[in-house]
Parts: sequence; structure tokens; C-alpha cells
Amino acid sequence: MKEVAIGIDIGGTNSVLGVIDRDGKCLVESAISTRAHTEIELFLKAFAKDVNRMLEDLKEDVQVKGIGIGAPNGNYYLGTIEYAPNLIWKGVIPLVDLMKQYFDFPTIVLTNDANAAAIGEMMYGGAQGMNDFIMITLGTGVGSGVVVNGNLVYGHDGFAGEIGHILVDPMGRECACGRRGCLETYASAPGIKRTVFELLADTSQPSRLRDIAYNKMNAKIIHDAAKNDDKIALDAFDFTGEILGKVLADCVAFSSPEAIFLFGGLANAGDFIFKPTKHYMEENLLKIYKNKVKLLPSKLNGAHAAILGASALVWNEEEKQGQ
Amino acid sequence: MKEVAIGIDIGGTNSVLGVIDRDGKCLVESAISTRAHTEIELFLKAFAKDVNRMLEDLKEDVQVKGIGIGAPNGNYYLGTIEYAPNLIWKGVIPLVDLMKQYFDFPTIVLTNDANAAAIGEMMYGGAQGMNDFIMITLGTGVGSGVVVNGNLVYGHDGFAGEIGHILVDPMGRECACGRRGCLETYASAPGIKRTVFELLADTSQPSRLRDIAYNKMNAKIIHDAAKNDDKIALDAFDFTGEILGKVLADCVAFSSPEAIFLFGGLANAGDFIFKPTKHYMEENLLKIYKNKVKLLPSKLNGAHAAILGASALVWNEEEKQGQ
Repeated sequence: MKEVAIGIDIGGTNSVLGVIDRDGKCLVESAISTRAHTEIELFLKAFAKDVNRMLEDLKEDVQVKGIGIGAPNGNYYLGTIEYAPNLIWKGVIPLVDLMKQYFDFPTIVLTNDANAAAIGEMMYGGAQGMNDFIMITLGTGVGSGVVVNGNLVYGHDGFAGEIGHILVDPMGRECACGRRGCLETYASAPGIKRTVFELLADTSQPSRLRDIAYNKMNAKIIHDAAKNDDKIALDAFDFTGEILGKVLADCVAFSSPEAIFLFGGLANAGDFIFKPTKHYMEENLLKIYKNKVKLLPSKLNGAHAAILGASALVWNEEEKQGQ
Repeated sequence: MKEVAIGIDIGGTNSVLGVIDRDGKCLVESAISTRAHTEIELFLKAFAKDVNRMLEDLKEDVQVKGIGIGAPNGNYYLGTIEYAPNLIWKGVIPLVDLMKQYFDFPTIVLTNDANAAAIGEMMYGGAQGMNDFIMITLGTGVGSGVVVNGNLVYGHDGFAGEIGHILVDPMGRECACGRRGCLETYASAPGIKRTVFELLADTSQPSRLRDIAYNKMNAKIIHDAAKNDDKIALDAFDFTGEILGKVLADCVAFSSPEAIFLFGGLANAGDFIFKPTKHYMEENLLKIYKNKVKLLPSKLNGAHAAILGASALVWNEEEKQGQ
């Protein structure tokens, strides 16, 4: 009988879920609106219904080994989601305990989405065989998962790996966390948009981006403009890479990883973001680290990456218990 | 028969060594001039002679389990000292391999001095029972040892934990590493001296420190002035704590440790350095980390701390091999 894990990635708007086998093949997937389920209990009922339907739809017999959950502000040790600013459920949600009322699978495990992505990369992506690497997710926010000695770094409280909230400029941009100048306000998709608007204000450089309102602008439009040699767009990528590259240089001084993976919306801009980030990272590295650390795009299949990472948590947990 | 380890801490001027038992008791100690032995082979001969003399002098029968070496730019994986700017031996020194020609103890292990201090703190000091903590050494330079999941973070190349070379200000002070604005240029003993001289130049504040030449000034004099309410000295400690506290806040976002230990010359200034560092660290922490991370003085016995940490490497290695 085929062993499978259920992976779910909980996002602010939608949550995606799927049934994944040990080889990382997604057998069936589904989606649930997060926002429409204003109470966590309603969400769980919808989730349980979807899981049962997916399992019934499968043509083969499977044995479900567990559920892996990636969620913003997810706490691995406690199985809770704590004060996630982008979720409709407020306060502390004891998600793993609640799920245990619906399912008696051997493993139900939760962590934040970037940590799940790191485990996915280690199990199925470009980090296979690596013991020390960092995963950076450049999306609506900036998340990170740090792997040291082959294990994810959770920290003493389960909240390690908030590289997106390393302070870049104490007088800098307002961040959703209530502070100013976090990396996330520069190196995320909204961050590069803010950079574009600063450049539009600071310079007189002609740019097609001057015809687009703030609320219409997004990272895709900036990427397209860069492809057409728009100077403002190119400068915005360079500035973003400078900020990100400098922080990555400091991260290397901390854990000296073999590679740093970039994942998510902004990473899809390819060389436009990788080249300046690599350049400024190398420029700021201590001599002993220079030309050693690979800066790589994630190799996870984009469409299933989030649920692949979440499901991988289940196998990773099994391995840890077997140790 | 009592099991013992030999610990040696290699410094730029002198190296201290000792025979330590499993309980961290130093049975006998010695010192060798590092600088006087211009060739590593000469140093090793002096070291071997000292070790044999110490073992002969012991009143009890002992079984030597190994040698633990703390050294600047020490590489754990390769057993090498690599391009240490403060040592008289240049290039790459394969110290562990060289030592094996003199001794056939089961374990000969090397790492940098701050990593050795971290292991010592975990085995004999305030970090007993902690799985996640950071050791910061504030001496001539700023070193660090990061412990995650109960293991020291060596990184993929053995050089992790260079928090002293996190960049604080890209236009900042010249650092011995060839760059500008590393934490070490502010938060070390020479760093606070540089801060004092900046404050003497920037302000007209009366201070007894105005009577002391740069080459005569040191951290002890500044500490004494602070005890006498000298405003320049107090401001220098506050500024040092601000720079250090901000970097520690970023370190917490990375590995979320239970505690951060401060060790070495500058840490001996007690509240003068701990209070501002704690204040600015808390001020710059992401909300989920606030009031959780302890900032503590090292509990290692000052006189033997360096060799205690080095010897602890031997027991730590045994434990790892037993896993």
C-alpha cells in the first residue's frame, strides 16, 4: 500500500492542500478559501471534508502517514499559529490539537511556510544532500528557513528564521511588524514596488512605470519593464539586490551555509534579482567566505512547491523520530 | 584511573594549556610563548615537552583522552589554522595532523577560541541544559560560537560564527579583516577605545580621559572612568551597547536562542555594558522575541576559561561519536 502525506499551505487568502507520496508526486490537490472561513472550526470542517473527498477520489489504496502544515507564524514546538497579521483568525490558534480531533494519523506537524519550503527543498529540490543551507522566500513578505547540520533551526521557542525582519535601516520604511526598515520592506514584491516609487520621485529618468498608479503596480510589471531595459526598473532590481545581498553576507557570517536558495515571486525575475544580489553579497563577504556560497533558485516545482514542502514535514518528522 | 583532557588556547602572544578532568577541574596548567616560536614545529616541540612534564608532575594516574585546541581561525573540519592575522605562523597550518606526530591520544580536535568557549559554557558554565544559545567573546576582537539543537554550528566549511564581522556600517571604521564597519571595530576592547576618541573629538565634555594618549588608553581605564561617572566613558559604553544590542537583535531573528552570553575583557565591565546592550537589543527585537532572550555573563571561571573550553571539545567529541 502506498504511503502518502497530506500537505497544506495556509495563506491569507487561500489555502492549498494535496496528497503527496514519498517521492514528492502530488496525487491529487485542492484549495479552500481561508478568508471565507472566519472561524477556525469552520475552516477545519471544510478541510476535513476536502481531505476525505480527495482520499476517496484516489484510484489506489493509500496509507496516510500524517499531515504537514505550513502556516504564517506557525510554531513547530506548540503546533500553534500565533498572532499572524495576514490571517483572519486572531490570537493563538492551537491548530495541531484541533486537527487531532478530526484525524488520528500518526503525525500532525506544523511550522511556518518558509521552514516548510526549506524542508521541501532538502527532500525534493536543489538542497538534496546539503547539511547547511538557507531558504529565502521573496513573496508578499520575506521568509526564511535555516538548515544547520541537516536539521531545521527552530530556536528555543520555535520562532527562529525571521531573516525578513533583520533591520536594514532603523530610519527606513514602515513594516507590518510595527517597526521600521526590516529587510521585508525592501526585498519583497511590495518592497520593490516601494523602491520603484522612490526612484520615480528621486529622479527624472523617463520610464513607462510613470504611467502606472501605486495600486496597479506589481512585481510582474516591474519585471516586464526591466526586460524592456527600463532604467527605473533595472535600478530598482539593483537596489533590491544590494539590500538583500548585504543581509545575506551577514547571514553567511552567522551559519556559513553551502548555498542560499531564493524562492517565490521576486525570485522568478531570474538574473534581474540574482545577479545584483550575488554581486553585493560577494562584495560584502568576509574573505574566508568569498566565492564559496552558492546563490541558487529553488528547484521545487512552482505549482506544488508549497504543499510539497508541507508534506515533506511528515517524512522529516519520521526520520527524526527514527534517529 | 582518572580520565583527563588536555586543553590549549593559542593566542597571538601566549598560549595557555592545562590538564583538565571531566568535572572541569584544572589539575595543572602551563603557558608557552606563541610569538617566540617562529616556526610551528618549534612550538609543537615546546608544547609536547610541556605536556609530558605536566603529566609526569601529576600525583595521580590519569588516562589522557585527547587534546582540545582553541585557536584563532581554527577550522574544525580540517583541523587547520587558516590565515590567522594575529599569529606569527602564516598561511594554512595543519595543526591537528602535526600534533598526531607527537601524540596518539584517541581525540585531537581544534576549533576557534569562541567556539571552544561556547562548548565550555555548555559543559561547565551557565549554558548547562540549554540547546540554543550564543556565546559572544568581547576581547581584542569579537568572536562568537552559536549552538543550535545542542550542537555547535560549524557551517559547511567549518568557519561559521563570525558575528564579529557582521557589517554595522559600510562607511565605518577600518577592520583588521580589510573591510570597514565590522561589529568588532565597535564592540571589542580596542573598539570602545576608538569610540572614546571619537567622543573626545566630537564633544567638549570635560573628561579625565583627555589626559591619556591613544597608545596608553585601554578598556580598563575607560571602565574605571565610568565608575567615577565620567560622561565620555559612560557615553562610550552606551554607544557600544547600542551597536552590539542591535546586532544581537538581528542574531535573535536568525536562531532565536534561549540566551546570549557575553565573555571576555569588555564583558567584565558588568552593568556598564550589559544594561545598554540589553536595552537596545530589546528595543530592536521583533515582537515575538521580546522579553524572552536572556543576556548573561559567562559563568566560566575567568582564569581557566580558555583551557576549560578547549578541553571540553574532547568530551563533546566523545559524546558526538557516541550518538
